[in-house]
Amino acid sequence: MNAIRAADADDLAATMTALGEAARAAAAAVAAATAGAKETALRAAAAAVRARAAEILQANDADMATCRANGVSAALADRTRLDPARVEAIARGLDDVAALPDPVGAIDKEWTRPNGLTIRRVRVPIGVVAIIFEARPNVTADAGALCLKSGNVAILRGGSESFESSRVLVACLHDGLRAAGLPTAAIGLVPTRDREAVGHLLRMAGLVDVVVPRGGRSLIERVMREARVPVIAHLDGLCHTYVHRGADPDKARRIVVNAKMRRVSVCGATETLLVDREVALTHLPPILHDLFKARCEIRGDEVVQRLDPRVVAATEADWRTEYLDAVLAVRVVDGLDAAIAHVNGYGSHHTDAIVTEDEAAAAAFCARVDSAIVLHNASTQFADGGEFGFGAEIGISTGRLPPRGPVGAEQLTSYKYVVLGDGQIRP
Amino acid sequence: MNAIRAADADDLAATMTALGEAARAAAAAVAAATAGAKETALRAAAAAVRARAAEILQANDADMATCRANGVSAALADRTRLDPARVEAIARGLDDVAALPDPVGAIDKEWTRPNGLTIRRVRVPIGVVAIIFEARPNVTADAGALCLKSGNVAILRGGSESFESSRVLVACLHDGLRAAGLPTAAIGLVPTRDREAVGHLLRMAGLVDVVVPRGGRSLIERVMREARVPVIAHLDGLCHTYVHRGADPDKARRIVVNAKMRRVSVCGATETLLVDREVALTHLPPILHDLFKARCEIRGDEVVQRLDPRVVAATEADWRTEYLDAVLAVRVVDGLDAAIAHVNGYGSHHTDAIVTEDEAAAAAFCARVDSAIVLHNASTQFADGGEFGFGAEIGISTGRLPPRGPVGAEQLTSYKYVVLGDGQIRP
Repeated sequence: MNAIRAADADDLAATMTALGEAARAAAAAVAAATAGAKETALRAAAAAVRARAAEILQANDADMATCRANGVSAALADRTRLDPARVEAIARGLDDVAALPDPVGAIDKEWTRPNGLTIRRVRVPIGVVAIIFEARPNVTADAGALCLKSGNVAILRGGSESFESSRVLVACLHDGLRAAGLPTAAIGLVPTRDREAVGHLLRMAGLVDVVVPRGGRSLIERVMREARVPVIAHLDGLCHTYVHRGADPDKARRIVVNAKMRRVSVCGATETLLVDREVALTHLPPILHDLFKARCEIRGDEVVQRLDPRVVAATEADWRTEYLDAVLAVRVVDGLDAAIAHVNGYGSHHTDAIVTEDEAAAAAFCARVDSAIVLHNASTQFADGGEFGFGAEIGISTGRLPPRGPVGAEQLTSYKYVVLGDGQIRP
Repeated sequence: MNAIRAADADDLAATMTALGEAARAAAAAVAAATAGAKETALRAAAAAVRARAAEILQANDADMATCRANGVSAALADRTRLDPARVEAIARGLDDVAALPDPVGAIDKEWTRPNGLTIRRVRVPIGVVAIIFEARPNVTADAGALCLKSGNVAILRGGSESFESSRVLVACLHDGLRAAGLPTAAIGLVPTRDREAVGHLLRMAGLVDVVVPRGGRSLIERVMREARVPVIAHLDGLCHTYVHRGADPDKARRIVVNAKMRRVSVCGATETLLVDREVALTHLPPILHDLFKARCEIRGDEVVQRLDPRVVAATEADWRTEYLDAVLAVRVVDGLDAAIAHVNGYGSHHTDAIVTEDEAAAAAFCARVDSAIVLHNASTQFADGGEFGFGAEIGISTGRLPPRGPVGAEQLTSYKYVVLGDGQIRP
């Protein structure tokens, strides 16, 4: 038994190394691919998804059978499930990425030194990007497409639930790459469900340049703990909306209800509402009215509890909870400083909003709240690469180093300096 | 004995945690410090260095005595040694950083979405930056000053050889912080020579946002292996100069000699010269003449060996060696593709140059060589933040993710998105 395990482990190590080496070998060709070739590949991949829809759905049937056999949750099964409309959405997503501008080669800035040297900072691909995600077979296509658009080689490791669907989707991406004369190693798929494969990806320094985990907290934490390569991580979205005493009550009502209830399961959903004590009795009741009408549970502090008998008592844990559900924690605060302290202390540095007509207060909030995205008079649900104009996104980075916030094709690039001289030597 | 060790280890852990917590607690105040306050602090620190020069030199005498007692190399002792001129250079360095523009709050870009939302990408500090370096007490002042300028809190861990000098220099930085009303925790110093302190810094996720190692290969490799926080690393500078067949021979001669010999111990010094076969017999002899005259050892392939009896035979290892000395590996290549393959295969992705009058060849080299800095018709010795106009630098990052290349005050910042609305909700 042990001997067999060891042989399996050797096989897995060899498989993963081969995958990494193929990716590294393809990196120069993918980095050098023209905008036209990449667009051709993505449009051909979209066409392949449409042409092979029946095959994709058949593979998905096999995945759904595995889901049933393994007794996965209804939510996970739904995320895994494809239907003709979802397959068409995948194809449309590929066309959308095809239409994005090519970020590679763009000149961020250019300046000339007193000695005549001209220095350009030019966008370049990062190299080999490993993306580790759970369920949702569409991520296979989105992630592969965004990596290709940004000139990176992708190594994809999808959820084991969507293993068969992902295989066919990657085959469609390969159809696209072949149509454009690009190497199919540009988009690699980990060819096994073995969980240990993730461990290999995290330690393949030299072959993998960055790992992007996309999934639940336990996956992200494993990646951050084990990775020996840089990580672009998307941790919790414990987002706040703060209704400042200078808020327009109607705007506050509209924004808060949207920020919480538009979609409760997205990372940009507001989880805690802060309201200035001065306006709690005037601004909060209409907001609570709308939220209760929308079947949202409210967990409030004592002031909030007195406003409505349906309010449940909030505990300290509520200020730290990302519900991803129709539940909102509500707290009354004593002004701007207290609100900022709460957001920076309890939040996850993802997305936070202030509602106010007081420009100075808004500026202070936006400057002092230490989050990837801060908003003034807008819903936290705008935390999304598409809403930013980035096209698709691979996630929202909650790290402190760039890329921070929504990560689209441009954010999957790095830069180099090109220095143009005429024989300059350094004195 | 074990009990004592355990108690020491507990003490060290407590000391390091306290240092990290003080740094984290100071981060908001340092991030919010005005440009004026930071400039005041740095100029006052420069004044303190000048006023306390005698005290600094006395501390340095103690460090030099330790160096002698420990029998360190002459090179290391020289890097540790201060004299009045070097102290004045430290003070001038602080004044120079004081005069730099404040990178915090600068707007990288701003755009408006069809729904009327205006999105700004704004530079913000990273947070707490731990800098681990060897010898050279001036790095204490440079690193502390760059972190303060960029709104970051610094935790400095200097070489044990310069421990006493660093203590007094940090005291001078604290004089400056106090003069500006900023917390002295903005610049912390690891208060022990214990090597295990580095291990703690590398694992203080949540308290330390990024680690910047600056030193020899063994330090960098330890940091990259052990770090549980992001790293901005400066690995080898195995830099190349490539003399293309389209090179102007006089430019090539001037550039190569400067790139190798101006200072042989800097990371931007050229270590390997590549020359197109077509021009080897014409362009190489004058270059070799000048290099031999400057007492540079040449290790060449067979073609190069035939040009001069003083040329030593190069081995495979020479193409992989960063000499940091008056030694140059020289290889004849068959054109642009071979040169690019050599640079990308053997190099360290730091800084590489092409000499040519052929614009198409230069553009291809600059696009396809995968290094942080690529130069056309200029010396690789320009790989330096000061030469780029960044003011001081903390090192040259050879990682693939930003910041890449010279890391000055601006490169020690990250960004956030500020979204300005007028009541927008997401459909």
